[in-house]
Amino acid sequence: MRFKIELEYCGTPYCGFQEQSDIAQKSIEGVLRKALFELTQKEVEIAVCGRTDAGVHALGQVVHFDLEKKLSPYQIMMGMNHYLRPEEVKVLNVIEVGDDFHARFSAEMRHYCYHVVNRSAPLVLLKDRAWQVAQKLDILQMQKAAKYFLGEHDFSSFRDSQCQAKSPIRTIEKFVIQQNGEEILFEVSAKSFLHHMVRNMVGALVYVGMGKIGAEEIPQIIAAKNRAKSGPNAPSCGLYFKGATYFKGAN
Amino acid sequence: MRFKIELEYCGTPYCGFQEQSDIAQKSIEGVLRKALFELTQKEVEIAVCGRTDAGVHALGQVVHFDLEKKLSPYQIMMGMNHYLRPEEVKVLNVIEVGDDFHARFSAEMRHYCYHVVNRSAPLVLLKDRAWQVAQKLDILQMQKAAKYFLGEHDFSSFRDSQCQAKSPIRTIEKFVIQQNGEEILFEVSAKSFLHHMVRNMVGALVYVGMGKIGAEEIPQIIAAKNRAKSGPNAPSCGLYFKGATYFKGAN
Repeated sequence: MRFKIELEYCGTPYCGFQEQSDIAQKSIEGVLRKALFELTQKEVEIAVCGRTDAGVHALGQVVHFDLEKKLSPYQIMMGMNHYLRPEEVKVLNVIEVGDDFHARFSAEMRHYCYHVVNRSAPLVLLKDRAWQVAQKLDILQMQKAAKYFLGEHDFSSFRDSQCQAKSPIRTIEKFVIQQNGEEILFEVSAKSFLHHMVRNMVGALVYVGMGKIGAEEIPQIIAAKNRAKSGPNAPSCGLYFKGATYFKGAN
Repeated sequence: MRFKIELEYCGTPYCGFQEQSDIAQKSIEGVLRKALFELTQKEVEIAVCGRTDAGVHALGQVVHFDLEKKLSPYQIMMGMNHYLRPEEVKVLNVIEVGDDFHARFSAEMRHYCYHVVNRSAPLVLLKDRAWQVAQKLDILQMQKAAKYFLGEHDFSSFRDSQCQAKSPIRTIEKFVIQQNGEEILFEVSAKSFLHHMVRNMVGALVYVGMGKIGAEEIPQIIAAKNRAKSGPNAPSCGLYFKGATYFKGAN
């Protein structure tokens, strides 16, 4: 039986979603596989919707796996959360899905958000949960600039040099920036993203907010297809994998 | 010169705002006094708007103190945050005020909020920042019940046995409960509160949401003037001192 699982996790103490053979630090995948082994006494393979980097959080990450042992969704949720007690990873929801469901390949849209706190005081309650930017940001310019990312583009300028995707072409369906007091929330949705793409776009937009890049320069930066033109990579601590939408019938 | 200071802090690692001679754990007051001593080489007395308990957070706590040394508000903010680096206490804002300003006695209104997360999965990103309640809560009944707290009442039923206030009469000016997905936010404002009063009211409202207390029973519970009638004390981790409003001319 195949199960679709929704997860919340704090990325701070982990080396990222994926297990890394050469790193001593724990991965999200590793602690999930360990919990599943304790629950089922079997090695279980896990497929994930969005492989987040070290320090990146998830509000609704999606994974799937197949279990031989007969367990109900409720037993899986309670059992996994029992074994995950010492970890900053929790199961929010479990449903049984058909064999054609795939956490990665059935995803129609992935939703990320990025959290900036625009103030001079260091963070306390949002420490490791947001990017603190001391210089006052011009939100209107950032909102204007974000519109240029919408639609289909070659995102080579916003792609990490380690990115393994075959094509640099991606289609941004939504890019919204909202301000609530000192907090600035970026919400961005696409079928898929290149490696570091959200953080690189946010980095460029924060430079726009600082006046270091003009909003109207974004199209030229996209056209340059050159990572060196596009500003800093926003720190991982502000990024959240918010959730995914699946093709109808895929779950 | 007198300065009014706004603070953010995480209450988790502290024994509360006030210095306790008999407790080994650090207090917010203690770390502030230590930072001020390092900055000025003088012992500085601090007056606070709301003496929060152990584990209670602040988004905008207000304190005042008098300094002999000539420092600008900016120097005080940067200097204090420098010495507060290892602590989960930060200065958000500093302004110079007149000698008639008093952080406690000039406050016209105190604003608290309380954060419940209504879900079965344990908390990760809001661990120690909210009260996780697994049983599904009926928000409409809670909103109905909260209205009974508005106005002037004898709040003996919602007062801790240790409370030192002379009168149990308080006036609630605002009590709003908002739901956003699994998150439930309580916002409550009054000139002042009794000890544990906000947490006791939230505890009673959560019991209403669970159906353990009827919304229409709140007036009887208030009238009973008996702490034993009113349900649990909500845990400190969900409570935030949000800010204070001061009498015109007081700053």
